[in-house]
Amino acid sequence: MINVAIVGASGYTGLELIKILVNHPQFNITYISNSQGGINVKDLHPSLDGVIDMEVQKADAKDISEVAELAFLALPHKASMGFAKQLIELKVKVVDLSADYRLELDTYEEYYCPHEDKENLKHSIYGLPEFYDGLIPNARLIANPGCYPTATLLALVPFIPYIDPKSNIFIDAKSGVSGAGKKLSDTTHFVNVNENIFAYNPFGHRHSPEIAEKILELTDIKANINFVPHLIPVNRGMLISIYATLEDVCDVKAILKEFYKNDTFIRVKDKPVTIKDTAGTNYCDIFVEQNGNSLFISSSIDNLLRGASSQAVVNANLMCGFDEDLGISKIAYVP
Amino acid sequence: MINVAIVGASGYTGLELIKILVNHPQFNITYISNSQGGINVKDLHPSLDGVIDMEVQKADAKDISEVAELAFLALPHKASMGFAKQLIELKVKVVDLSADYRLELDTYEEYYCPHEDKENLKHSIYGLPEFYDGLIPNARLIANPGCYPTATLLALVPFIPYIDPKSNIFIDAKSGVSGAGKKLSDTTHFVNVNENIFAYNPFGHRHSPEIAEKILELTDIKANINFVPHLIPVNRGMLISIYATLEDVCDVKAILKEFYKNDTFIRVKDKPVTIKDTAGTNYCDIFVEQNGNSLFISSSIDNLLRGASSQAVVNANLMCGFDEDLGISKIAYVP
Amino acid sequence: MINVAIVGASGYTGLELIKILVNHPQFNITYISNSQGGINVKDLHPSLDGVIDMEVQKADAKDISEVAELAFLALPHKASMGFAKQLIELKVKVVDLSADYRLELDTYEEYYCPHEDKENLKHSIYGLPEFYDGLIPNARLIANPGCYPTATLLALVPFIPYIDPKSNIFIDAKSGVSGAGKKLSDTTHFVNVNENIFAYNPFGHRHSPEIAEKILELTDIKANINFVPHLIPVNRGMLISIYATLEDVCDVKAILKEFYKNDTFIRVKDKPVTIKDTAGTNYCDIFVEQNGNSLFISSSIDNLLRGASSQAVVNANLMCGFDEDLGISKIAYVP
Amino acid sequence: MINVAIVGASGYTGLELIKILVNHPQFNITYISNSQGGINVKDLHPSLDGVIDMEVQKADAKDISEVAELAFLALPHKASMGFAKQLIELKVKVVDLSADYRLELDTYEEYYCPHEDKENLKHSIYGLPEFYDGLIPNARLIANPGCYPTATLLALVPFIPYIDPKSNIFIDAKSGVSGAGKKLSDTTHFVNVNENIFAYNPFGHRHSPEIAEKILELTDIKANINFVPHLIPVNRGMLISIYATLEDVCDVKAILKEFYKNDTFIRVKDKPVTIKDTAGTNYCDIFVEQNGNSLFISSSIDNLLRGASSQAVVNANLMCGFDEDLGISKIAYVP
Repeated sequence: MINVAIVGASGYTGLELIKILVNHPQFNITYISNSQGGINVKDLHPSLDGVIDMEVQKADAKDISEVAELAFLALPHKASMGFAKQLIELKVKVVDLSADYRLELDTYEEYYCPHEDKENLKHSIYGLPEFYDGLIPNARLIANPGCYPTATLLALVPFIPYIDPKSNIFIDAKSGVSGAGKKLSDTTHFVNVNENIFAYNPFGHRHSPEIAEKILELTDIKANINFVPHLIPVNRGMLISIYATLEDVCDVKAILKEFYKNDTFIRVKDKPVTIKDTAGTNYCDIFVEQNGNSLFISSSIDNLLRGASSQAVVNANLMCGFDEDLGISKIAYVP
Repeated sequence: MINVAIVGASGYTGLELIKILVNHPQFNITYISNSQGGINVKDLHPSLDGVIDMEVQKADAKDISEVAELAFLALPHKASMGFAKQLIELKVKVVDLSADYRLELDTYEEYYCPHEDKENLKHSIYGLPEFYDGLIPNARLIANPGCYPTATLLALVPFIPYIDPKSNIFIDAKSGVSGAGKKLSDTTHFVNVNENIFAYNPFGHRHSPEIAEKILELTDIKANINFVPHLIPVNRGMLISIYATLEDVCDVKAILKEFYKNDTFIRVKDKPVTIKDTAGTNYCDIFVEQNGNSLFISSSIDNLLRGASSQAVVNANLMCGFDEDLGISKIAYVP
Repeated sequence: MINVAIVGASGYTGLELIKILVNHPQFNITYISNSQGGINVKDLHPSLDGVIDMEVQKADAKDISEVAELAFLALPHKASMGFAKQLIELKVKVVDLSADYRLELDTYEEYYCPHEDKENLKHSIYGLPEFYDGLIPNARLIANPGCYPTATLLALVPFIPYIDPKSNIFIDAKSGVSGAGKKLSDTTHFVNVNENIFAYNPFGHRHSPEIAEKILELTDIKANINFVPHLIPVNRGMLISIYATLEDVCDVKAILKEFYKNDTFIRVKDKPVTIKDTAGTNYCDIFVEQNGNSLFISSSIDNLLRGASSQAVVNANLMCGFDEDLGISKIAYVP
Repeated sequence: MINVAIVGASGYTGLELIKILVNHPQFNITYISNSQGGINVKDLHPSLDGVIDMEVQKADAKDISEVAELAFLALPHKASMGFAKQLIELKVKVVDLSADYRLELDTYEEYYCPHEDKENLKHSIYGLPEFYDGLIPNARLIANPGCYPTATLLALVPFIPYIDPKSNIFIDAKSGVSGAGKKLSDTTHFVNVNENIFAYNPFGHRHSPEIAEKILELTDIKANINFVPHLIPVNRGMLISIYATLEDVCDVKAILKEFYKNDTFIRVKDKPVTIKDTAGTNYCDIFVEQNGNSLFISSSIDNLLRGASSQAVVNANLMCGFDEDLGISKIAYVP
């Protein structure tokens, strides 16, 4: 059994981490914290009453290091860096769910804020198992990918070599409201969201450079990424619709099937994917279709799970030498 | 390992049975059937692709008896009786999710149709574990309770001795649409249900006599049950609001807490319950409040799980000598 | 044409007032205000772009009196009183949508706060047209009823003489989220409300004494009101389910039909009512059923319209000598 | 007053036609029919109880011609042709909401079925007022555009001259469930749609050739249209996200503003559009953004109104010499 800590237990991804780890055969939750402490987990998350009974601590790196070998950080960007730095110094392995260690220094500082841990940034591994599984097992610090980038990269990377490099790639992304977090705002007020849909931050979202950077890293091709997210009136789920132009005719369905034939958590579908089929699981479902030289790729993930918490635990599994799917849910919230 | 069969795998409760049993530590699914066969489970339920790979058979009792010791029947009423009869003759234990074995003969024939298996009806055990756990372990045939009756009985039975027997008990029940089943009808058309709520079948629902009969059986009191169900625009979940008149002043919160202090799957709450907190679990959450001699009890269950499939597996656990919560989910679909 | 002012234009009921009055044949909007001013209505409410182009003022009673003869106050309780007092002194007629003038002084001060305009409180008229239409035309100050009381009183008052006065009357109310207002809170966060339902403030809601008081006023009978509201995952709409015990057998459907045979805005239905059928209109749909001496009444209104803004304009119509339905919508938001 | 008939009153677009025409200052509904007759409109559409009281006829062209000068056909494709033909012979003006008269003969027969009224097809006018208003006033037969094409053409046509003609244009369309009609199917079952989103018929939807044909007709440019629709879990509303590649740098916001400066029913927005802001109205809201040579256009309409019924009445207004916005709603279903 490996002892693990969950830092930032108040939010949705924190809750999902607890839900996965509480029944994990090899991980033992020995520490849960948020910024304040002084509450029991079952009062912080009433649905967990009967499932777990543990005091929530006020986050402290030293305390963590005394009881856990690995920590999951479900903190806002910037807050993570400070914590991760201390934990790594204390020899605790870290899986960070924020953006703080995902990007090249320049890109990070352009889209977020000044970096406070450039040293560890050099050694962080981007935790997308299908592509970085060679590096994850030996990592001491995992930068868990963003939700939109996870679903986009998994769908798009297999086709980058076939796409006309001079053309634009368009990503029409659609996310459930849990992706916006617990914070109260007009954007998350039920009356504004229900029966509604709209794009936000067109072309300007911070996940755009993350997608472009990883594509370059994985394929050496500088893709013209144009990303427009939308908010949809559901609690969880993320659907990505990618539109691109192929350079030549090719058998896109065969390419996709072949690319992922050995990947447990990718399901290649023969009809357009739905978000309900992946909700509650770590699966990414992908469908592809072509029309002349037009390419359409549709991918679906659970934004809180494959887009954050379950992918984090998959990374932790690999870091600790376990099978990637140990303790990871494959059973969807259907119907 | 006990080999089990799922008969009636096409509907929602059939799907939920598969979801629970596929990972059950002691039950092994050896047979899945619907009325037609000729399809793989992962095509019948695409969200299970990667989780289970098994041919769906065209239901046959003899075939079942050769591969399974216990069968779950998720069939419409009337269809169950024929099947159960054959299976019991073939020495297969049966957990029936329909209404066919729940009621006294007279009541059944008044509200449903002529009974075709009066012999086994005499020996069936009503599968509500909190009340019938003494009888369930030795049963060969379990009549799994209806969803509305489960949530209502669990909330109401503790208070029957305190309620003025001459007064009316009112049950305002609210159910998610999965309770109506997969069948296409105006009642389940998205455009009619979304953004809408309405009562249906006021006072006339068949779950009304089931509730009254079990109360009489359990408490010897003939309660005046007045039951009005409503359809709410959610997929799953059931909220029961019970209104009654107490005979005398009593400490209702203490009564409730005491009554269920040893029951794993009942959570007594100190604020009104929500359906999300029980969705995905076998829990029944209950809250009670009084105002003078007015009593208000609020209970919540997942209509497909505690209201059908997970309760069925709990019953099977008890029938096979396992702990009631073996393989039973306690982790809610939250957020 | 009568010049009217809308005070408190930022919220939902303020928006609904604008939507009704902008096309009203006899009312002319000459003044719109909120607490801050300095914005155009079409920026405050973007859906009204192209419909109305008017500066929103920072509320001032003197300014109002110079341009309007009648003012609609869509303010929180307590805030209304101060304003109404000034306006009445300035000879402006007032329709107040808050609770400030609805109740007897004692009741108001017990459930809200100290009253600051006891003089005008004595003369205010409760604006429920079906019952107070004799008094509304001459009123200078209308206390517009609460949403829950509107739907409850319309359903219940016809039956008070037939209900056993010693018995409890139970009201299970269900409201869409717009009833909670624009304010950000966990209760209105999409992720908490969507796919969810729960009771709140059982027996303690402030609309309870309003209902009881008006019943006493209208029927001389002191009814035992037990009111439990619930939040439902829809934007607008309110469904009330009333449960009571009749003293004797009577033809409840005939009673209801007869009672409202001349009322334009009451529709007596022969099956349980739905909230979609009244959404967008001033209608109150009512259905009644009995089971022995058990009574079930189901009523539906649009909480923002019949529960506030359209009823306010109906009252204004009567105060100004117009037909009650002048400019009032009867066309539902269906499908 | 012009007497009008509504043929095909059972469906959603038929209901919306009634809702608009019942209060239209110049149109008088003298005939309503569906395929069966024998029912009153207020029983066919219970929300219209109190609004209209008229027998629904079994559709007959001769009968129509005796009481109406203009007929709205809200029938499925193929059914319309037979009717329209008869009505035109009887000198009744026709506004057809189906696809039967929208396309060139070849295109129609390739995507729908053999055409049964080639003669009238030659003279039909495509009823998109912003582009064909010169031809609509004198038309005897209007082919009301499809919902997806309406929203797409209004958004895209202004930019066709600026888009690289060799590049692909991608249209990611999202529609509420009312667009699928009243028919019962798995696609409209609440449990499948709620909390879900998915693409359907990628690249193959029949609206794709309609869009391409009209662009060619209006701009002489053969655009490479790639259209992928999605179903979203709302009742009404349609959001179109268009992605294209510009040939040169240009001021896209100025182009859009200029193009529609005189159009009453187009609102150019400075942030991404929402479907709630147009729900209940005839408005089309459009927003445009660029990123280098990437173009993103977002447009929103009410699929039942601007996408069908209100646009039909606008066309009828123009055919009868009335102002285009006579009797047309501009007030959104907000909140």
